[in-house]
Amino acid sequence: MNAKRNELAAGEAQDVDTLMKGIGDRARAAAKTLANAFTEAKNAALRAAAAALREREADILAANAEDIAGMVAGGSTKALIDRGMLDHARVEAIAKSLEDIVALPDPVGSVIAEWDRPNGLHIERVRTPIGVIGIIFESRPNVTADAGALALKAGNAVILRCGSDTFRSSAAIHRCLVDGLRAAGLPEDSIQLVPTRDRAAVGAMLGGLGGTIDVIVPRGGKSLIARVQSEARVPVFAHLEGVCHVYVHAAADLMMAKKIVVNAKMRRTSICGAAETLLVDKACASSHLAPLVEALQQAGCTIHGDAATQAAAKGVVPATEDDWYKEYLDANIAVGVVDGLDEAIRHVSAYGSHHTDAIVTDDTKAAERFMNEVDSAIVLHNASTQFGDGGEFGMGAEIGIATGKLHARGPVGLEQLTSFKYRVRGSGQTRP
Amino acid sequence: MNAKRNELAAGEAQDVDTLMKGIGDRARAAAKTLANAFTEAKNAALRAAAAALREREADILAANAEDIAGMVAGGSTKALIDRGMLDHARVEAIAKSLEDIVALPDPVGSVIAEWDRPNGLHIERVRTPIGVIGIIFESRPNVTADAGALALKAGNAVILRCGSDTFRSSAAIHRCLVDGLRAAGLPEDSIQLVPTRDRAAVGAMLGGLGGTIDVIVPRGGKSLIARVQSEARVPVFAHLEGVCHVYVHAAADLMMAKKIVVNAKMRRTSICGAAETLLVDKACASSHLAPLVEALQQAGCTIHGDAATQAAAKGVVPATEDDWYKEYLDANIAVGVVDGLDEAIRHVSAYGSHHTDAIVTDDTKAAERFMNEVDSAIVLHNASTQFGDGGEFGMGAEIGIATGKLHARGPVGLEQLTSFKYRVRGSGQTRP
Repeated sequence: MNAKRNELAAGEAQDVDTLMKGIGDRARAAAKTLANAFTEAKNAALRAAAAALREREADILAANAEDIAGMVAGGSTKALIDRGMLDHARVEAIAKSLEDIVALPDPVGSVIAEWDRPNGLHIERVRTPIGVIGIIFESRPNVTADAGALALKAGNAVILRCGSDTFRSSAAIHRCLVDGLRAAGLPEDSIQLVPTRDRAAVGAMLGGLGGTIDVIVPRGGKSLIARVQSEARVPVFAHLEGVCHVYVHAAADLMMAKKIVVNAKMRRTSICGAAETLLVDKACASSHLAPLVEALQQAGCTIHGDAATQAAAKGVVPATEDDWYKEYLDANIAVGVVDGLDEAIRHVSAYGSHHTDAIVTDDTKAAERFMNEVDSAIVLHNASTQFGDGGEFGMGAEIGIATGKLHARGPVGLEQLTSFKYRVRGSGQTRP
Repeated sequence: MNAKRNELAAGEAQDVDTLMKGIGDRARAAAKTLANAFTEAKNAALRAAAAALREREADILAANAEDIAGMVAGGSTKALIDRGMLDHARVEAIAKSLEDIVALPDPVGSVIAEWDRPNGLHIERVRTPIGVIGIIFESRPNVTADAGALALKAGNAVILRCGSDTFRSSAAIHRCLVDGLRAAGLPEDSIQLVPTRDRAAVGAMLGGLGGTIDVIVPRGGKSLIARVQSEARVPVFAHLEGVCHVYVHAAADLMMAKKIVVNAKMRRTSICGAAETLLVDKACASSHLAPLVEALQQAGCTIHGDAATQAAAKGVVPATEDDWYKEYLDANIAVGVVDGLDEAIRHVSAYGSHHTDAIVTDDTKAAERFMNEVDSAIVLHNASTQFGDGGEFGMGAEIGIATGKLHARGPVGLEQLTSFKYRVRGSGQTRP
């Protein structure tokens, strides 16, 4: 059965809708079993999958070599090829990440809240799996294991749609996950990989497979996320971009501000929590603006500044209106002066993406106002925006950051991949 | 401005999309202000609205009389006319319900969880408003006030679309809400009523008004909910039906089972938490089935039974396959015998609507299995399904019951109308 499905991977013609419907039906059936699976069985599956990954490293690297050869021949960029490439260390990291998920507490069955009613009823709000999660991702093959394992640990069945470029690598990793499921006696359909590169499969997933997929989590570039957000007929946990701000308030300590700004922008420029705009309060601009700009420049950052910034430092590129909206994801930053806290909040609201925004100040009241009034998933006081991350929040593995307002907001970790229900215990109560 | 908008209510021709876009834009602007409104301002608005309702009772009843005359002329059913009718007691009840919402704690700003990280960061998960809520309802004019007030108290702007039959009544009540907002200095656009009966307005709301509406809550009959669920491009908090079960397990106390079954079915037959199917375990059928059926019959209920039930009692209508799926919402119930806990769970999963289901048993282990394995928003042990209600849960007012798995499940009260964000406090931390 599996062997037959794998053949489709080679690109055989088949009706994609029929294929996807079958995958959806099997996922739904697996989800029913998984919902009541013991923690130990889920952990055993993840441990066995980690072992299989180590055992089959040669197969995985061979599959990856074919993928990489295809990417080179197809003219992929160096950055994409690096993302898609696997080696011994990366395979080991994938196996290790499965073991890290084993170590996380199982959220299913945990009681979130409980209370008693005057009539003696005891009410519990308890975590349950969501059901079936669809994950659509691009070139990083490790997502196959990370996302699959996280969804599984939360008791969900998962349908993975990987990037075409690394299809063989994902399939090789996926086989290890299925081995793990089989070893643990869990349904093999708990983690399915869409066995075709046909893009119609993505459309079918976005349609929800007839009510089968409960939520979709896309991982990849902006064009993928945009497509998923605009076409999906099911809920999506995602963020389109991270236009993150650092606002240096009038009462900011300059040394702290420099440290935070340089870290927020330059520690890693390619992550969604990297700062993209620096706002400096007019009240401290004369003392703080030039040193902040120079610290960024010394760290190798190009400054796109407003008139005040251009006047304060050398080598500043004039900022256009577009710069305030821009997610550079590299060593560029927009820098502007704002006239007080209100204008800062207005700027962040108007140009930001409601992802992660920080204020640097010694004025607690100003910090509270900023944190309360900026409507972003994560707001920080005197800390780098690069902390906007599930691992840094102590949530363990995460599948991404969501900027939607319903169910999951901020880091999407194990708990965010669960739902809940109410368990009510009585002793014969009837309603008057 | 308001006067002009009210004129549209009289049915003037206008481009509905333009009208709705304006409503959406004003709601979004109001939501920004509301998000940071003080609890006292929101409460003052609700109190002033309650006062206005009492003061303008004559106007409201006059408007209602016109609506009712229209319904009578249009041949509405008695039940519909009763739902649409207002009198002194009902207006007073509406005013009182606003005051009840004043008494509920403001969820906005409450800290749901907080923890410290080893690096000294303090992380808080704090409730925030969702933004803009769309409410589409049918003939009960009181929903205008209840739903508007609940959404407002949670810091949201709300767009209300009322039933055509009671348009004048809703408009009269809405004017009191706007008076309250004005008196409290809150944006009048915080609670808007769609000023046209044109059904295209519903379509526009279901489309989300260009990303403006964050969630839609429909209140009404099954055809409305079905339309909303199938057409909405934004999240919906709703349940399509409440096919609720009582399963009388082998170890059930007969007296308790009779009390619970009769209450679950007959206390009020028209509510979504009313039982629609009784399952009796084969192991206790010889002692329990006939007395349960007879107790229901004595209470005036018609029994649609399987073969065993037909054999056990007189006057049982043979159940068809359709009966197991049916939400009667009146004095009818489907009754069948199941062979043990597993079959009971399978039956509830296959035929139920994942709303509210109960087990009656003295066997705690059986109860735990039922409550864990039945995937419904609310599962009860030894209590009536009619407790499936936000008020009975102690949540205060509710806007409905949701059976979806994301964000809101079970009763949708104040807390369920909020989102959250993360507030992170540091002392200059940068990420290594």
